[in-house]
Amino acid sequence: MTRFSTPNPDFAARVRDSFARQRFMTMLGAELGKVRAGHCEIALAYRPDLSQQHGYFHGGVIGTLADNAGGYAAFTLAPADTSILTVEYKLNIVAPGDGTRLIARGQVAKLGRTLVVARVDVVVEKDGHEKPCAIALTTLMLMAGKSDGPA
Amino acid sequence: MTRFSTPNPDFAARVRDSFARQRFMTMLGAELGKVRAGHCEIALAYRPDLSQQHGYFHGGVIGTLADNAGGYAAFTLAPADTSILTVEYKLNIVAPGDGTRLIARGQVAKLGRTLVVARVDVVVEKDGHEKPCAIALTTLMLMAGKSDGPA
Amino acid sequence: MTRFSTPNPDFAARVRDSFARQRFMTMLGAELGKVRAGHCEIALAYRPDLSQQHGYFHGGVIGTLADNAGGYAAFTLAPADTSILTVEYKLNIVAPGDGTRLIARGQVAKLGRTLVVARVDVVVEKDGHEKPCAIALTTLMLMAGKSDGPA
Amino acid sequence: MTRFSTPNPDFAARVRDSFARQRFMTMLGAELGKVRAGHCEIALAYRPDLSQQHGYFHGGVIGTLADNAGGYAAFTLAPADTSILTVEYKLNIVAPGDGTRLIARGQVAKLGRTLVVARVDVVVEKDGHEKPCAIALTTLMLMAGKSDGPA
Repeated sequence: MTRFSTPNPDFAARVRDSFARQRFMTMLGAELGKVRAGHCEIALAYRPDLSQQHGYFHGGVIGTLADNAGGYAAFTLAPADTSILTVEYKLNIVAPGDGTRLIARGQVAKLGRTLVVARVDVVVEKDGHEKPCAIALTTLMLMAGKSDGPA
Repeated sequence: MTRFSTPNPDFAARVRDSFARQRFMTMLGAELGKVRAGHCEIALAYRPDLSQQHGYFHGGVIGTLADNAGGYAAFTLAPADTSILTVEYKLNIVAPGDGTRLIARGQVAKLGRTLVVARVDVVVEKDGHEKPCAIALTTLMLMAGKSDGPA
Repeated sequence: MTRFSTPNPDFAARVRDSFARQRFMTMLGAELGKVRAGHCEIALAYRPDLSQQHGYFHGGVIGTLADNAGGYAAFTLAPADTSILTVEYKLNIVAPGDGTRLIARGQVAKLGRTLVVARVDVVVEKDGHEKPCAIALTTLMLMAGKSDGPA
Repeated sequence: MTRFSTPNPDFAARVRDSFARQRFMTMLGAELGKVRAGHCEIALAYRPDLSQQHGYFHGGVIGTLADNAGGYAAFTLAPADTSILTVEYKLNIVAPGDGTRLIARGQVAKLGRTLVVARVDVVVEKDGHEKPCAIALTTLMLMAGKSDGPA
């Protein structure tokens, strides 16, 4: 796993502050886990209103967590005046979201001057075990001088 | 636009029934729009609890709608005993979700024996105009003999 | 289909010049077809040395054509001092490359300030008919001030 | 790294045999490297006729190697009567292919009953050092009863 140094020593506080302002995260009951330079973990507990027609975690919830874990992994490496934008992501759902807890772990794979590529693994916890649920590859863009808050 | 014939004349009722059982759709306030053979539209109105840190529609909401519109577009072409699984999707977010309403339109591009490929366009409505917001390309799998309901 | 205006009236000559300098295109026997603002077509004839183990066009040849058709579609919309870089692409191979000629048609779907998104359809000709072979969605980057030639 | 057991003890010979029948690989001068259960490496040396307009490895060559390394990684885990098909792949080009040798390493991330997901890292060698060049995420399909040779 590549190690990264970050230009912003306060990156973890900045990620937590930004995450707290994402009202959709609050609504889903998502929580930030480990936040390190180049890495971010997000988890959420199962609730019936997050389910698809078979009663499992909805694919949209899985994708949301993956997108966000990749985005915040990139955000940890951004200068203090720079915000992050999702350019695109690709997500393979490799098993149904059948469990009590979903955890997405984003890891920066390549830090460029303008673009960042991150890999994300999403697992689902059931009976105390983690099982792979989804794998994503995402592209983020560093937006220098753009605030992370509302315009 | 390719036209498709479907082996299930009741496809629209089947899509509406399945959609109604996706509790996450209800929670988001999403509504089915046009449902035709090979095509499905899903929309939802803006609410602050669906937002990211700038106050726009969260990328996860955009991705959820895209994934589902592609999935139900494929579902319209499935035999009555066959359910649909998202294998993977790729989503480009081409503009912020800045508006009052999000609409995802899924269209089957290729129907195979086991796999279906669909394109999805997501637009955001603002001041009465539609603006492109995201573009997706998704792969779905036909699961013969698998029920669309809980196990 | 969205219509685009281009800041470079000589875009077609510029695309042809750049294409002619891609030695891999020459080696594959690829030829530029229609070049319009936001659109580019590339084709090549079957040769046994472009095949995979079943004797069809190799997936790598299909991907190469798709990548290039998307890239040159974007290039038609670039200012005269700007070159183009493939950021990423996603390609669905929807049928084997079984035929005598492969044609890739790239079309810009979204032109941003820094990034361009293009869709590409690849068809294979057999017995005078075109059959869908692959579908791609690609992200390109506009590199202002970067030459399109060797450093 | 997940370890896999394969149902075909002769997987390495089978991969080498299939690879040798891909005429496009011969034409590119590509060579198989390590072949283990769930893993496959393919490399090729620089030649001017594999280049794009800046003289670097063409993106199509990078994509071809990535697609093939993922496909053969999956093939190592296939039963002896089963062949492999690329469903789709997504490739991020993270740096120009500026070097003397390109190496793609495919690793199966998830083996399902019908579908296999593989990650691929492509590096470029220059002055004795490896530098990341591309990252891919690919979906393959196991085709039971389908020969790996010409119909």
